[in-house]
Amino acid sequence: MSTTTHGPKGLEGITAANSSICYIDGDQGVLAYRGIDIHELADHSTFEEVCFLLWFGRLPNRAELNELKLNLARERKLDASIISLLRQAPAHAVPMDVLRTIVSALSYYDPEEKVNDHDANVRKAIRITAQIAYVVAAYDRIRKGKPLVEPDRSLSHAGNFLYLLNGEIPSATAERALDIALILHADHELNASTFAARVVAATLSDMHSAVTAAIGALKGPLHGGANEAVFHILEAIDASGTGPVEYVKAMLAQKKKVPGFGHRVYHTEDPRATHLRTMSRDLGESSGNPKWFDISHKIEEFIVADRKLNANVDFYSASTYHTLGIDVDLFTTWNAAGPRLREVQQTSSWVSR
Amino acid sequence: MSTTTHGPKGLEGITAANSSICYIDGDQGVLAYRGIDIHELADHSTFEEVCFLLWFGRLPNRAELNELKLNLARERKLDASIISLLRQAPAHAVPMDVLRTIVSALSYYDPEEKVNDHDANVRKAIRITAQIAYVVAAYDRIRKGKPLVEPDRSLSHAGNFLYLLNGEIPSATAERALDIALILHADHELNASTFAARVVAATLSDMHSAVTAAIGALKGPLHGGANEAVFHILEAIDASGTGPVEYVKAMLAQKKKVPGFGHRVYHTEDPRATHLRTMSRDLGESSGNPKWFDISHKIEEFIVADRKLNANVDFYSASTYHTLGIDVDLFTTWNAAGPRLREVQQTSSWVSR
Repeated sequence: MSTTTHGPKGLEGITAANSSICYIDGDQGVLAYRGIDIHELADHSTFEEVCFLLWFGRLPNRAELNELKLNLARERKLDASIISLLRQAPAHAVPMDVLRTIVSALSYYDPEEKVNDHDANVRKAIRITAQIAYVVAAYDRIRKGKPLVEPDRSLSHAGNFLYLLNGEIPSATAERALDIALILHADHELNASTFAARVVAATLSDMHSAVTAAIGALKGPLHGGANEAVFHILEAIDASGTGPVEYVKAMLAQKKKVPGFGHRVYHTEDPRATHLRTMSRDLGESSGNPKWFDISHKIEEFIVADRKLNANVDFYSASTYHTLGIDVDLFTTWNAAGPRLREVQQTSSWVSR
Repeated sequence: MSTTTHGPKGLEGITAANSSICYIDGDQGVLAYRGIDIHELADHSTFEEVCFLLWFGRLPNRAELNELKLNLARERKLDASIISLLRQAPAHAVPMDVLRTIVSALSYYDPEEKVNDHDANVRKAIRITAQIAYVVAAYDRIRKGKPLVEPDRSLSHAGNFLYLLNGEIPSATAERALDIALILHADHELNASTFAARVVAATLSDMHSAVTAAIGALKGPLHGGANEAVFHILEAIDASGTGPVEYVKAMLAQKKKVPGFGHRVYHTEDPRATHLRTMSRDLGESSGNPKWFDISHKIEEFIVADRKLNANVDFYSASTYHTLGIDVDLFTTWNAAGPRLREVQQTSSWVSR
């Protein structure tokens, strides 16, 4: 434990911690990573660049970016025992329980399980980032009885995930949509899962322990899971034959909350929702199935006008993820697996600073 | 999620939480559960009574205690798949990683995985309490190539654990020593593992997620693990042939910290240390091997006189656990498995209140 002398002392200062990584202005609807506005990043960067930005505090030059992409691609592998553990998860298991268990078990095969210094934690962050996406995709194929797909190291992180999940090289639109979703979700300050990860990391435990804790927190319905609830409503509307506005009006008349609207922090539009709306629309068009976007958009127009509530990050991610081929009961695992690498990233910064 | 309307809202209030369960006065060296002094409990109660006290807020009557003992005994069973997962943990795996993974996997086979109300959480607390002790004992026997022992439902929780671990019915002294150790460690306010568990539970996730997070926190050397360090020093002294005081003097001369002394909260003797000292001595005498107590006691006398530091809970638990047959690399898993059921207990109170 070579970081003991440099690390944080117990829990001191944690609850008052300000993130040097992430900036949020809820009144103005601003989200920035390391001082760079999220709109800028969503329009002009890739997930791999954002990983570098979050981990190292600045955007990479070309050589640095290539090295990170190479390292992420190289870590797209799972020990055969991990695949075996995935196959042993019973059919009735809750996907988040499986993910939590498997990420915990990844520690068995991590070549640096017993090393907790800065450089090792950077390598672990890369390794867990690559592996966790593989785990979610492999789990979905195993439970559907489909053969596993070998990772493609020439693809981006987003492209490879969709390839592992769906067994075919994704369209440029789909790959870029997921890439942007990853960027938008990469960090959001001290939310509950990040907080859980940091409490664990502050004991100088290790990254697998911290990420396992984060997944457990993300499982809670007060934290993760809102986009699952959104998609269930979209499906119910589609099945009912009722118009989206009529359906939602009936929900409100029954004092039911419409998920995917409003945010504790953002009092104007969640800047992430802006991009997810565009992606949902573009994906709907390019896939020839604009239904889920159309239903979503009608709900949004009504809720904004009637309730003065804006769509949050979860609202359009429901139709986006579905159109990308992600099953609704995997939305939260995917939130843990891909976008919410904030836990890995923040844990890395925390443990190793 | 039937508790949603009654549960805590997100993280609000957590960091400022006062435990209604546990009272600590570090200046006076007082520790009390639910208003009852720890000395009173160590002298006159059993672990099962303390479980009831922590979970339900008062000591049980005879019928209530019998029911809890029966329920704990009934839950001394593991799905065959859990035993299989234990057998698959590689020989080089870190015991805390195995425990974290297996406790996470216990959720697969929990009949109430999807229920998160008060009554279900009480049953889960009982189930996890019983299972986690079984897991640690079974893991130790599996890794040593020994046959598994069937739980004995007529024994106490402490007695059954030692039976599962060592394969023979423990002496009354050993059983009572472990029983008292369980009582002493059952709660200690918002330490890091409890805090991690509560952050997770506050999202209305579930008890397996919360306990998994707690185990991850306990793994950190700033939290768990101090009694392992103590025992390594006892062993080194025994092997060196040097006197304990000389050995410790040499450590201090090299600016090394002697583990097991001093406490952030207690400025007088840690009240738990008082009982652990007695247990270590009694166990040494009754087992005919007083060596570890003797070395410990000489170190303590010197450090108290020379450094004005008192032994903490970890110091005498090292020699106590060793004499009970618990391997040094399992001390922390055992801290998670048995005594530190505070996480289960507090999570149960938290989720279900």
